Order: sequence, then C-alpha cells, then structure tokens
Amino acid sequence: MPSINVGVIGFGTVGAGTVEILFENREVIMNRVGSEILVKKIADLDTRSDRGFSFDPGLLTTEAMEIIHDPQIHIVVELMGGMEKAKAYILKAMENGKHVVTANKALLAEHGEEIYRKAEKHGVSLAFEASVGGGIPIIGILKEGLSANRIGTIKGILNGTSNYILTRMTQEGLPYHEAVQEAIELGYAEDPPTLDVDGTDTAHKLAILISLIYGVPAPFDDIYREGIEDLTPEDIRFAHQFGYCIKMLAITKNLGDRIEARVHPTMVSLDHIMANVNGAYNAIYVEGDFVGPNLYYGLGAGRRPTGSAVVSDIIYLARQLRHGVNQLMPPLAHVHPQQREILIQPMETMNASYYFRFSAIDRPGVLSKISGILGDHQISISNVIQKGRKVNGSVPVVMLTHEARESNVSKALSQMERLDILTAKTMVIRLEEE
Amino acid sequence: MPSINVGVIGFGTVGAGTVEILFENREVIMNRVGSEILVKKIADLDTRSDRGFSFDPGLLTTEAMEIIHDPQIHIVVELMGGMEKAKAYILKAMENGKHVVTANKALLAEHGEEIYRKAEKHGVSLAFEASVGGGIPIIGILKEGLSANRIGTIKGILNGTSNYILTRMTQEGLPYHEAVQEAIELGYAEDPPTLDVDGTDTAHKLAILISLIYGVPAPFDDIYREGIEDLTPEDIRFAHQFGYCIKMLAITKNLGDRIEARVHPTMVSLDHIMANVNGAYNAIYVEGDFVGPNLYYGLGAGRRPTGSAVVSDIIYLARQLRHGVNQLMPPLAHVHPQQREILIQPMETMNASYYFRFSAIDRPGVLSKISGILGDHQISISNVIQKGRKVNGSVPVVMLTHEARESNVSKALSQMERLDILTAKTMVIRLEEE
Repeated sequence: MPSINVGVIGFGTVGAGTVEILFENREVIMNRVGSEILVKKIADLDTRSDRGFSFDPGLLTTEAMEIIHDPQIHIVVELMGGMEKAKAYILKAMENGKHVVTANKALLAEHGEEIYRKAEKHGVSLAFEASVGGGIPIIGILKEGLSANRIGTIKGILNGTSNYILTRMTQEGLPYHEAVQEAIELGYAEDPPTLDVDGTDTAHKLAILISLIYGVPAPFDDIYREGIEDLTPEDIRFAHQFGYCIKMLAITKNLGDRIEARVHPTMVSLDHIMANVNGAYNAIYVEGDFVGPNLYYGLGAGRRPTGSAVVSDIIYLARQLRHGVNQLMPPLAHVHPQQREILIQPMETMNASYYFRFSAIDRPGVLSKISGILGDHQISISNVIQKGRKVNGSVPVVMLTHEARESNVSKALSQMERLDILTAKTMVIRLEEE
Repeated sequence: MPSINVGVIGFGTVGAGTVEILFENREVIMNRVGSEILVKKIADLDTRSDRGFSFDPGLLTTEAMEIIHDPQIHIVVELMGGMEKAKAYILKAMENGKHVVTANKALLAEHGEEIYRKAEKHGVSLAFEASVGGGIPIIGILKEGLSANRIGTIKGILNGTSNYILTRMTQEGLPYHEAVQEAIELGYAEDPPTLDVDGTDTAHKLAILISLIYGVPAPFDDIYREGIEDLTPEDIRFAHQFGYCIKMLAITKNLGDRIEARVHPTMVSLDHIMANVNGAYNAIYVEGDFVGPNLYYGLGAGRRPTGSAVVSDIIYLARQLRHGVNQLMPPLAHVHPQQREILIQPMETMNASYYFRFSAIDRPGVLSKISGILGDHQISISNVIQKGRKVNGSVPVVMLTHEARESNVSKALSQMERLDILTAKTMVIRLEEE
C-alpha cells in the first residue's frame, strides 16, 4: 500500500497537535505501520493563525466537504468539536466509505448510537481514543488489554480542569473562585469553565467508558451529575481531618441487573492511590473480575497528549487497512452485545456513606435535633466535628455517617430545612470506600 | 468462523488461570470476539492435581506434540516456562502455521530473536502480553496506545516478589531474610527466590519492553543488574530521612545513539507516584515525547491477573483470524525497525546521584578522609548523616552526592577499601530524580 491518506477537520489545539505528531514522528510511525501516513488536507475556518510549526499552506481548506468527498482520503479525523455539524460530517464521511477518528466525547456520549450504527452499516471503523483520558490509552485498554474481564468497577478522575481546581483548593487553601480564575489564566480552563466544573464533561466520558464495558450506548441523561462549584476549602480541611481528600470522580459499578453511574465530588481515603492524582492529571481505576484493580494515569488534556491519542487511532486504522481489513471490531468492541440496554440505578436507591456540613444556629439542643432527625431516617453517625462560634451566629457541624440510603438522606435534609435550625444549605459529599 | 480453537501447553498456575477465564467468561468473550473460543486440548505432565475448577478430563494430555500437530488448533498457548523445550515447541508450532501466545519472559529476553524471525518467516502472530507486568496490558500499550510516540524513558517496578519484600522491610522494619521468609510462606516468592531478588526477572522484562520501543531484540546480557539482597532496614530508614524510598527499578532512557538499561535498587522521591506502589503490585512509568508522563499500575503476577493478560492475547488473535489476518503486526510491532541493533551504555560512563553508607572506623579524621577521597574523584556531597558509636567499633556514615560518574565512584570506593578506615563493604544506591 503506497500511503494511508488522512484528512483532518478542525485545526485548533488538538488538530494542530495531531498534525504536528504526524509530521515530527513521520519516520518512526512509518516504521511501525509499514506504510507512510500522509496528511492530505486540513479543514478549518481559521487558515491564518500560527500553529507553532511549519507546514505547506496548500494543505489548508475552509471546506470540510473537500475532505469528506476526496476519493484519495482513507481516514477522516474529526477534531472540530460541537454537535450537529460534526455529526453530519462524520455520518457523511462514513457513507463515503471513510474510516473516522474523533475526539468528540460530547457527540459520542449524546449521539453515539446513530454514529455506531452508521459505522456498522457501512463497514467502516470508528476510533475515539482521544475522547476519554487525553493521552491515557484507556479506550484501547478496555477494548483489548482487559478484554478477558468482566469490568465490575471504574472510578475516574476524568477532567483535568476540575482536578486542577481541587488540587489548588487543597494545597493552597484557595477558595473555589480564585482557583478557577487561576486555572483560566494558566489556560487549564475555558472562561467560563461550565462543562468542566459542573460534571457534564466527566459524565460524557463516563458514558463512553460504560458503553465499552457492555457494548451498547449508555443512557447519558440517566447519569447523575453534580459539580464542584459549591465546595469550600473548609470542606477540604474537614475531609483531611477525617483522613480523606475530595476528588471529582466518575463512578460506575456493575450491580447485576443494573449499574451505578454517577459523577460528583467524592471523599477518597488519603491512602488510596487516586488521592495522589493531582493537578491536570487524569487517572482511571478499573477493577476486572480476573485482573483485579488496575490504575492508569497521565495527562488528561492538552495538545500533545490528546494528539498522541488521536494519532494512535490513525496508526491502528492504518495497520488494519494495510491488511485489507475495514472493521476489525465494531466501534464498541462487541460483535454481540450482551444486553439491549443499560439500566442505571436511580440515585434515590443508592447506598453510601456521607459527609454533611451543617450550618447550624448556635443554640442549645441543635446538635441533638440534627442527630435525632438523622436517626429517624436510619442514618447513623460515625464521626462528628463541631467547631466554635462563628461571626454570623452559625457554627459548622460536620458529620460522617455509616452507610445510608440516598432517599433517606434527602428526606432527612428537607425535614431539617423546614425547621429553624440551619442558616444555609447543607453540604453533602458522598464517600467512596476502597 | 465456527470457533477459534486453542491448545494450552502447561497447566500450572498461569495455565489454570487462563483456562478458568476461558470457561468462566466464555459468553462475554464470545460477544466481544464474535466467535467462540474453545479450549481444544491441554498438555501437562501432571494430569492429576486439582486446578480449582471442573473441566472435562478428556481435554488433558501429557503430549505437547498432540497440540502442536493438531490441524484443528489455531492458537498454541505456551505456559510451561523454561527455555529449550518451550522454545522447541513454539518454533515447531509456528512451522505448523499456528499462532502463538506465551508468557515466557526469560525465553523472549534471551532467545527472542530466533522466535520473532520464525513468526515473520511463517507469517504467524506471536503475542506475549503476560510476559511483563502481569495483568497490566503494558505490551499492548506500547504497541498500540502510545504508538504515536518516541518513548524516552521507562521506569518499572516489574517484580512483585521483590516489591513485596521491600515493602515489608519498609513498613515493618523487617530484615531482608525475614521479609523473604514471609514472602515464601505467603506464596509470593519461590524458595529460594533467586531470579526474583537478584534482578534477573526484572531484567528479562526490561529487555522485552526495550525491544518493543525500538523494534529489535535488546541485548539482554548488556543490561546491568543488581539485586536487593544486601539492603538493610537501616538503609531504608536513612533514605526516608532524606525524603526517598527504595524501590527495585528497571530503567531505560534513550540517549540518542545509545540507551541506558539497568536494574538495581533505586532511591525514589517520596513525592513520586512510584513511591506509593506497594506490596505485590507492579507499576510502569512511561514518558513519550508527545504523551508526556504516564503510569500503569496493577497486580504483577498471580494466576488470575496473568491469566487475564494471556486471554487478552487470545482474544486479540481471534479477532484477527476472524478477518483472515494472520499477522496484523510483527511480534515487535515494527514493520521496519529504525536500527539494526541497540547499544546499551556501559555502566561506568553513567552519571547519577548516589547514596553511600560507609561503615567507618570510629576514629578522628575518618570523615575528612572519606570526603577527601570523594572530592579527589569529582564526587561532591549534598547531605551527610553521621550516627553515634556502634557496638562493633564502627559507625555508619551516610551521604548523598550530587551527580557523579559511575567510574569515578568505583575508583573512589576501591581507594577507600585499600585504606584502613572501613570495616565493611560500602552500600551504594543510585538515586533517580524525577
């Protein structure tokens, strides 16, 4: 095969990283594949910005369709982001018999099914290593490296922006808004960083990982999500006193007939290896029935690590194409999925241990009232910290509980809120034991 | 394709784990591959021991050749270990057009070239995920997940036995021999555990990883190796005082025209993520030119994790065979290796920072003599601990140095040994910064 030809749609951060790798590591990639991988065309509306390396300007076009209809292009790489337009390009490219690489986690999480079906219908490959975990090859690990296992649990730090913010709040005691501002100034966060901090981005990635475990698209809307916006350095300090740190986790567990799938700030034991994942790093903890606990750690975003993941997909497809194979595996790596759909357990029926920080009125009997209401709802307390009087007349009362049911927690909290004993919304953080 | 048929040679720990997974996860594996994977025959001289699960005794044979010559078997899985016999079986199986899966790191590290050539000659696949890192799919990660990168550095904790021993020496202050005894009693170590503790096993695995980076077999005999047998709990305590722990590391670095490749006890900063890899766990830290630093962590040995790796290889091959592909990539994942051979830098020319524990005669002027000799050899001291008088008349003098040349260290130490100032061999441990 003379060369494998690639067209790249979207020449922003990840697009530029991808093309840079294909240029800079051209020789080593050719040695690994056995054929040259050529960048045939790059589409972007912005044809003028400096991308930080030199390339033939004749490669650039503003028309994505030039790539999609180019009969010489084998692999279309979608790195423009966004929903409808990106989807239309991908579907059209597949209709034209092109193989597709994408990093578009939002699109796959919310409209994956249509895309996976299209790939199967046209017998082309779809690869999306860059959609989760930046440079960590977690997609390939789930599709191949751990393919002998039933995956019971995944816990992931999947968003580098929110992990950076939490790390700064933890290490420097910064309030949330200052840490966000710093992240924006350093280029770790967009302004505003809404989808990163509210859990949406993490939930998109979790949906993709779940889809790979079972071979069917996960119902994205059913994934519970809660952001880090309300956390305070005070909560982080209390957590430390109990032997925990606070991480933004994506969690899924196989419960047999249904699964847990949730994204929220989580208290993680300081002894757990996830507790040492700081800054812009991501980490994915996976438990398989035979392999046991594994952890995969690396940079979760950025031009170079994400470019590394995109190019690994291109290499993967190129190796197949050299052997005349169009689709070694279906997009979700299951020829016959085990089930038709994935049922996510409603949050109310979940059991967890909890951290509560009550803003209590400083009055005799309040602690007894709070613990009484908890007891009435089968919530038993394991630890309490009550701090001295505060200026505004309320004191923080901090508690850890034994395992309790989420619906009971909601009921207890709303009962308390109806009484005249709390001055602010109660902070609730779920614990994740081992 | 009706079914993919597998023959397993060697029904010990890993063989039993492999067969157990193929039985227990039969359905999920079939769903992932699209064909059934059938265990057709199992060869072992021991046909009587309980393997912990039930199977048709008609599968068992004492004759490996029955598998190698069975025209219905597509994949031969060599899990017997050892050298000559295993090699002969593998080569013969390849001649017969069979694809081969093996976990035999010693064989690949020392006789890999002949086996890789044979696979290429007969156009069959060779897979060896289980040879390094137990259940951690590091082979696939290097062949595929990080394939866009030039790998600059690998640092690995690759031997669970020695990591377990060091962990116990660290956490409980046990002397080496007690920790070894405990590891043997718990089944983490063989009796005697020679190849695990003297660095040979780790060096075998490092040779395989290096081969995958460059696509040519690594010269195993040129890999420097040093064991953990001489370490004392005292050294571990001194290391902690300086902010380090001691890990048995395999290290390779790309120096351009040559590489570093060495296995020895190493001082690792307590802040580094490798410092938290304890017990029987393995971890592999990889730096690629685009992906940056990554870490992969999991159980490095044992029936179930290693079985997971073997079965992932079987699945990988089965997916290819279903599409009529016999060798999607050559064994070392390079169609055209970049170079003909790998040159390993001689240890003498290496630079590192060092930890020294001198057993010094308790006499005025000895410290000045030691530091004088170091200075004469361009070895500059960054930290010193000198402890009080010991019963046998000698005192430990512990030093950390700035970067120095290995050959100068050897010269300085042999000069000291010729003088009447030391009562025992000096303990030397290399530091690994960031």
